[in-house]
Amino acid sequence: MKKKINWSGRSHNYSNQDIKTIVNCIKFSDPLTQGKYLKLFESKLRNYLGRKNVFATSSATSSLELIAQLSNLKKNDEVIVPAHTYCSSAYPFAKNGAKLIWGDINLKTRTLCPLDTKKKISKKTRAIIVVHLNGFAADLLPFKKLIKNKKILLIEDCSQAFGSELRNRKAGTLGDFGCYSFHAQKNLTTLGEGGAIYIKDSSLAKKLPGLRHNGHSGFGKRKFYWKPAMVNVKEDLKYKWPNKFTLSEVQCAAGSVMIKKIDKMNNERIKRAKYFIKKLNKLSENLIFNSNFENKRNVYHLLPALVNPNGTIDRDSLIKKLSFKFGIQCVTQYYPLYKYDLFKKKGFAKHKCPNTDYYFDNMISFPFHLWMSMHDLDYIIASIKKIFQEIDDKKSNRIKTKKTN
Amino acid sequence: MKKKINWSGRSHNYSNQDIKTIVNCIKFSDPLTQGKYLKLFESKLRNYLGRKNVFATSSATSSLELIAQLSNLKKNDEVIVPAHTYCSSAYPFAKNGAKLIWGDINLKTRTLCPLDTKKKISKKTRAIIVVHLNGFAADLLPFKKLIKNKKILLIEDCSQAFGSELRNRKAGTLGDFGCYSFHAQKNLTTLGEGGAIYIKDSSLAKKLPGLRHNGHSGFGKRKFYWKPAMVNVKEDLKYKWPNKFTLSEVQCAAGSVMIKKIDKMNNERIKRAKYFIKKLNKLSENLIFNSNFENKRNVYHLLPALVNPNGTIDRDSLIKKLSFKFGIQCVTQYYPLYKYDLFKKKGFAKHKCPNTDYYFDNMISFPFHLWMSMHDLDYIIASIKKIFQEIDDKKSNRIKTKKTN
Repeated sequence: MKKKINWSGRSHNYSNQDIKTIVNCIKFSDPLTQGKYLKLFESKLRNYLGRKNVFATSSATSSLELIAQLSNLKKNDEVIVPAHTYCSSAYPFAKNGAKLIWGDINLKTRTLCPLDTKKKISKKTRAIIVVHLNGFAADLLPFKKLIKNKKILLIEDCSQAFGSELRNRKAGTLGDFGCYSFHAQKNLTTLGEGGAIYIKDSSLAKKLPGLRHNGHSGFGKRKFYWKPAMVNVKEDLKYKWPNKFTLSEVQCAAGSVMIKKIDKMNNERIKRAKYFIKKLNKLSENLIFNSNFENKRNVYHLLPALVNPNGTIDRDSLIKKLSFKFGIQCVTQYYPLYKYDLFKKKGFAKHKCPNTDYYFDNMISFPFHLWMSMHDLDYIIASIKKIFQEIDDKKSNRIKTKKTN
Repeated sequence: MKKKINWSGRSHNYSNQDIKTIVNCIKFSDPLTQGKYLKLFESKLRNYLGRKNVFATSSATSSLELIAQLSNLKKNDEVIVPAHTYCSSAYPFAKNGAKLIWGDINLKTRTLCPLDTKKKISKKTRAIIVVHLNGFAADLLPFKKLIKNKKILLIEDCSQAFGSELRNRKAGTLGDFGCYSFHAQKNLTTLGEGGAIYIKDSSLAKKLPGLRHNGHSGFGKRKFYWKPAMVNVKEDLKYKWPNKFTLSEVQCAAGSVMIKKIDKMNNERIKRAKYFIKKLNKLSENLIFNSNFENKRNVYHLLPALVNPNGTIDRDSLIKKLSFKFGIQCVTQYYPLYKYDLFKKKGFAKHKCPNTDYYFDNMISFPFHLWMSMHDLDYIIASIKKIFQEIDDKKSNRIKTKKTN
């Protein structure tokens, strides 16, 4: 059958008013990068997150590379990172010399399991990466307890969780470093690519502008504006060279208009996710969402569920039926990182993450975007219900037939 | 006095028709990154440059990092790079393990001097970076002779020279690797940030998509679209991790419309530069441009001149007069890289580049952008003439006075 609903897609549209601001920047902004729109976007980010050391970058991956660089990782330093996440949560640390230790997830939250992490902490552990996956703010308190009096950094990957909260504090601002993504599919996108970084330590934060922009930081006062030339290109980190991870003015303009709407957009997502989950409440033994946690603001970047392998239908059959019978494209995420060709070949095949394997083998991710009409959302819900109903009907028919015989 | 003409500024504007295309992409493109506009821009780049292995990247610096990674540099490998260039021409190679050897420039071309390079080639030399600075296509033949039968890579940095030509072939496509910049101030800008890379070796070129995008390359054929998941994240280089150097759809849309106009825009630059130089012809003993070379298309990204230190006025006095008397902001470029805090602290202070020092100490870079009106250009020319005329008048007055006395 013809596909009706794609899984992937842009997360939000831009209004005519937003586009007017963006076009204004395209037409008149001078310079077109590293100017007043960057300052504006960063001030809005700082205000929104309630932290001063927040900077715009070219992507969350760039932010994670910057974090890895600022973490001053030494050879054989270990970094614990969940195996159930996108590859960018992990590889920047290995790229900067760390040994990756795969952390398992908690099956309810689908985020890093503190109990498993505790077992994996060693004398060589230098950092723990907590990924607020799917928009769900993982609890940091257990991790803070684990690293107390230890020289271990707590790093929050909020690529999918801009606007998520934990006890009324923004995810990504509670550890030593945080990062955000404004990529095409994220809850807020700066025209397809973009990111941000939070740095707790103010002396490290001072190094960010240079580290992000080929070593460039501001000039001090100069008697003559043209000399000395280029004395603003400095060594920010003794042990690292700089990067080119800058966000353009046009991207910053888009970010500045969209950040005003992020709470509203996230509220709409939350409303829709709750509606979806509630409508499928009767199937809660079969489809297990991570919905009920107190003191949390889960911004539902994605809407995945665990398909109970002892339930009515197995995961692959459900995906097949939804796709081939109803034209709804669902996917499976995330392939455990230790199974990637990339990580295996680089020596990170070793793992002990039963929950990660179990969850990946039995999970389904439904299409879930703001561009989707309520009609489509209802169609997905109705299709799921129909699949389960048909199986139940067949079963009771078989029982009836048996009884009549 | 109030400043009238800034040195820096955006290199070109976007027409209403260009903006219509860009807005169409902002409104309807799905995905907003790595989609059909990337394919379109890359096909236009390939067509324009006459080479198939051309890819869009997030910046020229990113391209240079990718080149450094693909070059498989070993510890103690030496890379010869001109000291008279922007820092990004050099640091990606040091970041990837190379020892930087500072090459001197030829005073006429202001690009890497083949004679000096010959002296600096050693058994450890792994690459030579020729920077087509200011838009001027450096001759590659002498370098090709130097590296003949040697395992030395020839790398062209065309950050300032998109559209430059040498004997009717595009700069950047004649060596083993080339890179281009579409940064805010470049002759063509993809909305403030952007770049491209050319890779001669087709087997290395195959690694580029993954290396540029977190290891992602295309899926092969899969029976079921959702599995196996993420098998497209591969190890492209045994000795390197991937990067996130992607250009968004909106940036690619801008690139695709502007590339149609680049020859016209460059022709206008060439016309203006030649006009400027011709009008100052009488001062050619004082202001020495690099204008007269056969078989070259110099796209004049910048318009610098050597101020003869034995001439009418010294460089700093000229800048001061232009700035404080006429409101014209000129600058000096490029501070020799071995003098940067960044390179000195990383162990690359050693140098033997008398021409680089001499040129930097005596050069001036005039404001030169397409947004500048012909009226402004004429004002700069007239102001320069006036400065020289006044000095000459004073001199002849002194002589007259002496004679009368």
